[in-house]
Amino acid sequence: MPPVANVSWHKCNLLNHDESQTLLSRVAASHFLHLAWYAEPGKFWNSPENFRWVQATLKMMEVFHAAGGKRIVAAGTCAEYDWRYGYCSEDVTPLVPATPYGKCKDATRRLMEAYGSANGLQVAWGRVFYLYGPHEPRGRLISSVASSLLDGKEARCTHGNQLRDFLHVDDVANAFVCLLSSEENGAFNIGSSQPAKIRDVVETLSREMGRPDLLRLGVLQPPKDEPQLIVANNRRLSDLGWKPRYSLSEGIAHTANWWKTNFE
Amino acid sequence: MPPVANVSWHKCNLLNHDESQTLLSRVAASHFLHLAWYAEPGKFWNSPENFRWVQATLKMMEVFHAAGGKRIVAAGTCAEYDWRYGYCSEDVTPLVPATPYGKCKDATRRLMEAYGSANGLQVAWGRVFYLYGPHEPRGRLISSVASSLLDGKEARCTHGNQLRDFLHVDDVANAFVCLLSSEENGAFNIGSSQPAKIRDVVETLSREMGRPDLLRLGVLQPPKDEPQLIVANNRRLSDLGWKPRYSLSEGIAHTANWWKTNFE
Repeated sequence: MPPVANVSWHKCNLLNHDESQTLLSRVAASHFLHLAWYAEPGKFWNSPENFRWVQATLKMMEVFHAAGGKRIVAAGTCAEYDWRYGYCSEDVTPLVPATPYGKCKDATRRLMEAYGSANGLQVAWGRVFYLYGPHEPRGRLISSVASSLLDGKEARCTHGNQLRDFLHVDDVANAFVCLLSSEENGAFNIGSSQPAKIRDVVETLSREMGRPDLLRLGVLQPPKDEPQLIVANNRRLSDLGWKPRYSLSEGIAHTANWWKTNFE
Repeated sequence: MPPVANVSWHKCNLLNHDESQTLLSRVAASHFLHLAWYAEPGKFWNSPENFRWVQATLKMMEVFHAAGGKRIVAAGTCAEYDWRYGYCSEDVTPLVPATPYGKCKDATRRLMEAYGSANGLQVAWGRVFYLYGPHEPRGRLISSVASSLLDGKEARCTHGNQLRDFLHVDDVANAFVCLLSSEENGAFNIGSSQPAKIRDVVETLSREMGRPDLLRLGVLQPPKDEPQLIVANNRRLSDLGWKPRYSLSEGIAHTANWWKTNFE
């Protein structure tokens, strides 16, 4: 773990409750930003690991609170919403997750909010939409296309007409810092609120990487029930003063550059 | 623990995950009826213990499943419903629990159902309404009135015009056995479906106990937001063939008799 000014690193297996209890009790932090979860691309949607992270999260919250913690912010997901609604607002869109991942995140938020309001612990919940950027693990959209192009292989995609809400990982991180620094409770969408066509995103990426010739749109079938539009209403977050630094084209250029520099 | 034919007793602290894991792995049951929870009268509504039982339940389910378990039935509560609707049907009434107890039970059901459908484990959930009967701990309605009367003290009540769904504990138990023996999944209300006025219930009880003179209706203020009617639609359960053995008057007579015989 790299040295950073004013940062103390601690290493811990958060699924080991005794270990996490010992660490959280010793550190006795006032603010807790909890991002950890099972996130293996492709597998995380249905994995039983999701249920272990629910337990680990509840345990950590309890220990954090017992050690004097004041505020906890954790990562949720747009998959908590009923995707048929497409445009997702915290106070309007029904929460009907379709997958174990979405269901476990949704239940975790319900439990954290219940615990928080019963025990005087501030709880905020940031629902991440489609993030991208440096260090993205292979097997996700942008990382797959980028690594195929750098390998000199075809980047095979669906038609790409789906509209999604993409946000650069730095801006997702800023949003979490903003949530942690505020005193507001509840759920906050973390998204750009700008619908982007997947086709445009991967075309921009391919051009930025100098290999538009390798992009193959329309050669994969999308899943039958894939939603046409998933976009965040980000007003709650914007009202806290948060603004993204990157436009989508800047963010993709930055990401393309990272891949070119860091590809192995 | 008393010897019962064809019953093996095991003793275990279910909040100790290592202990419960060891026991459940060793027993390797096919069917699991999970009734344990924090239930201290008066305190259980808001206690942080509720959150520990969520964790314990998830852990037990995981271990039960890993050991070859096929079907799990657990106890829910009418407090999972939005009580403003009063008449509670599994497929109609919104699930908007108002208390940590209700929220933890609701989230546990969501998680168990998600786990069950992702992992091929059958999950049913019995929502208990107002149960009463022998061995009821002090501090609940029937037990408080009964023990006051036996103490020769006034039994102080609210106006008693609230309508509730009372069910004898033996019939609640039969309902859980019925759920465990079926192969149906999902939530089932466990109630009589008969609205009973609290006033009538405590008057019957006082008469059966020979001390109607000590009953004081209308001397306590009910909580401001107390619902007027909470009644189960029990059709889902009835469709499985379940019927209560006790009418309300028989059940109260039976309970009065138990208190007279067992009061210390």
